[in-house]
Amino acid sequence: MTQTMPLKPRDLDARDPLRGSRDRFHIPDGLIYLDGNSLGMLPKHVPARVQAAVLEQWGESLIRSWNTHDWINLPARVGGKIARLIGAKDHEVVACDSISVNLFKLLNAATRLRPERRVIVSDIDNFPTDLYVAQGLNTLLEDRFELRFVKRADLETALQNDVAVAMLTEVDYRTGERLDMWALTARAHAVGALTIWDLAHSAGAFPVDLNGCDADFAVGCGYKYLNGGPGSPAFLMVAEQHLEHTQAALSGWMGHAAPFAFDPWYTPHAGVRRLTAGTPGVLGMTALDAALEVFDGVDMHALREKSLALTDLFMTLMQPLEREHGFACVTPTNHASRGSQVSYTHDQGYAVMQALIAANVIGDFRAPNIVRFGFTPLYTSFQDVAEAVRRLETVMRSGAHLEPKFQTRSKVT
Amino acid sequence: MTQTMPLKPRDLDARDPLRGSRDRFHIPDGLIYLDGNSLGMLPKHVPARVQAAVLEQWGESLIRSWNTHDWINLPARVGGKIARLIGAKDHEVVACDSISVNLFKLLNAATRLRPERRVIVSDIDNFPTDLYVAQGLNTLLEDRFELRFVKRADLETALQNDVAVAMLTEVDYRTGERLDMWALTARAHAVGALTIWDLAHSAGAFPVDLNGCDADFAVGCGYKYLNGGPGSPAFLMVAEQHLEHTQAALSGWMGHAAPFAFDPWYTPHAGVRRLTAGTPGVLGMTALDAALEVFDGVDMHALREKSLALTDLFMTLMQPLEREHGFACVTPTNHASRGSQVSYTHDQGYAVMQALIAANVIGDFRAPNIVRFGFTPLYTSFQDVAEAVRRLETVMRSGAHLEPKFQTRSKVT
Repeated sequence: MTQTMPLKPRDLDARDPLRGSRDRFHIPDGLIYLDGNSLGMLPKHVPARVQAAVLEQWGESLIRSWNTHDWINLPARVGGKIARLIGAKDHEVVACDSISVNLFKLLNAATRLRPERRVIVSDIDNFPTDLYVAQGLNTLLEDRFELRFVKRADLETALQNDVAVAMLTEVDYRTGERLDMWALTARAHAVGALTIWDLAHSAGAFPVDLNGCDADFAVGCGYKYLNGGPGSPAFLMVAEQHLEHTQAALSGWMGHAAPFAFDPWYTPHAGVRRLTAGTPGVLGMTALDAALEVFDGVDMHALREKSLALTDLFMTLMQPLEREHGFACVTPTNHASRGSQVSYTHDQGYAVMQALIAANVIGDFRAPNIVRFGFTPLYTSFQDVAEAVRRLETVMRSGAHLEPKFQTRSKVT
Repeated sequence: MTQTMPLKPRDLDARDPLRGSRDRFHIPDGLIYLDGNSLGMLPKHVPARVQAAVLEQWGESLIRSWNTHDWINLPARVGGKIARLIGAKDHEVVACDSISVNLFKLLNAATRLRPERRVIVSDIDNFPTDLYVAQGLNTLLEDRFELRFVKRADLETALQNDVAVAMLTEVDYRTGERLDMWALTARAHAVGALTIWDLAHSAGAFPVDLNGCDADFAVGCGYKYLNGGPGSPAFLMVAEQHLEHTQAALSGWMGHAAPFAFDPWYTPHAGVRRLTAGTPGVLGMTALDAALEVFDGVDMHALREKSLALTDLFMTLMQPLEREHGFACVTPTNHASRGSQVSYTHDQGYAVMQALIAANVIGDFRAPNIVRFGFTPLYTSFQDVAEAVRRLETVMRSGAHLEPKFQTRSKVT
């Protein structure tokens, strides 16, 4: 019987089938970036593509580019590329607006499909914008709904036969906990409710199977694991069986059946494009369109496998810091319940993260006391993981985080 | 008594106090561009700024740029720059989303300020997205409103004391007719209604005086006379006396009083930022922010004077083509009623414009039969105007527009 020694990070990198994709990203010297769950890194080919959109398409071709460079179909084209990463059909997805705006559209549309029901269920620990959008829609509709925002453990119980829509985020932005999309969608359907899934921390992080889960609606953003750049356009998905009856409350001209007929009366586009509103932001859309190419040929199951190996390694290496330096892991240890990030509470979380960033390891902090580390399998290496923990250990051992300069809160934390 | 000879275009250019600003734009060789009312030309310094945002801010500084490059304040900063062009206070304007989305927010907010009234007045010839947004909000609210969409001549009559909001576009996108913002706002206020002005064809085209007109709300886009690039972010304005009571239906996290506190309950930001929703699109916002610098030091009254001189010259030179080639001017001849574009009906309008574009003069076509020519005083010269008419006359005389290839409609017309 041979004993298996755990592989060293260098060996894990050498055996990583995705190791080549790291070269497709611009990685600043010496930086270990564990914040792709907040803003993905820059794919190397994106700057030239954005520059071409600025200089050639805008600068030279000007207005003609709506046709010659097919700007008009960017939302559908980008949507189709994202569809393949989230288990939806190309024609079910379109890129547009922000998650907040898209959630508003879909939450209104979904509740209209259950007009006799007045309950919207969500997770009180959902990302706040999701909860705010529901509150805004409810104010607009003069408190038509009961907003049943409950603790995660109470979601199943909250899903009763008075529920119109369950609006949930698959991966918790603080803890990295991954909900069971299949089971929760099945439970929602069993009581006659519809689902809206927020894939902000899912799309591009691991294979999502919206169609396989029979999910009804979804939203997600372009700037995290899809690497589309800061404030990149978001996307939305409408399952094809709902499309015909999906009303666009934000009925802008781009969602019209014939935008260039300039009819004063609104007729929705037959496809998912009905859920677009204004003129698409071409520069941001171009960056996202280009960035999505890093997924070409990537086996999403291999991506998931690497993600779990990275987070497993990180959690293992962090154990001594949990014992000695006051970190407490809040990310589930079982694989099925984990996204692609690992988080810890720490009393000095803000200052610890500032000191770590000064040591050239970027994660982030989420109030009140959580330090988050995101792992993007396309560019995070196993050696990154080991070195990040080493630097964090150095920070804690030296007490660098106790320096006053790391206590001052910035505008965006 | 000396007789005044009309000045030649070259002389008009030589005497133009704004002639220097043309050098700040990238102008393709040989091209005469009269479509800045659809997509403004590229300011020369914009590509480097966008590239820096991509390579340095995103690529190198990554997530830190929200603080170090102040991405978080881009919407307010850009809004402040636009405020100075439209006669509003810096803190009344914010850049965000699209006109369609912003109109939805403001139309809801404004009607809430007149809860006992149920009429929304607009111009049936308003840009369709404005009308669609009103229809979408009305569907959402189960036909709460009477949508009193009337012919322009009937607007004054339509403004009765049952009207909650008058939603109007200052300059007609087809004819270039400029409405009297001062008089219509006064009329609306006299009957107790509020106003929302769409400045799509006004902002950057001439000085707008929202505060001087006592306007309540406004929207506008960044990609026409503000030269912010294709699908550039839009803006919205809320007069300060309304701000406190202005509700954001699209209550995303960027409009929260403390976005990074991650409170599950929505509290609006004290300022106009409450009307922002999701994460701002940094690339598009950066291009617009940079593009607005071409207005630094520009006397907006001189800009208006040049705009009128350009459109006067064009209308004069077009008179022979009206007599001989079937064009009929639909743009008002009196200055006060004119924006910065001139339009003609023509039976073969689509083909005429295609043939003219082939002759390297870009205007555009609007169904059913209008050819539009936009004049951007910052880069359009008097010689451009004269040469454009010469080329159009050549097209018409040669019958180039009758060639079959110019009859085929493109996706975007």
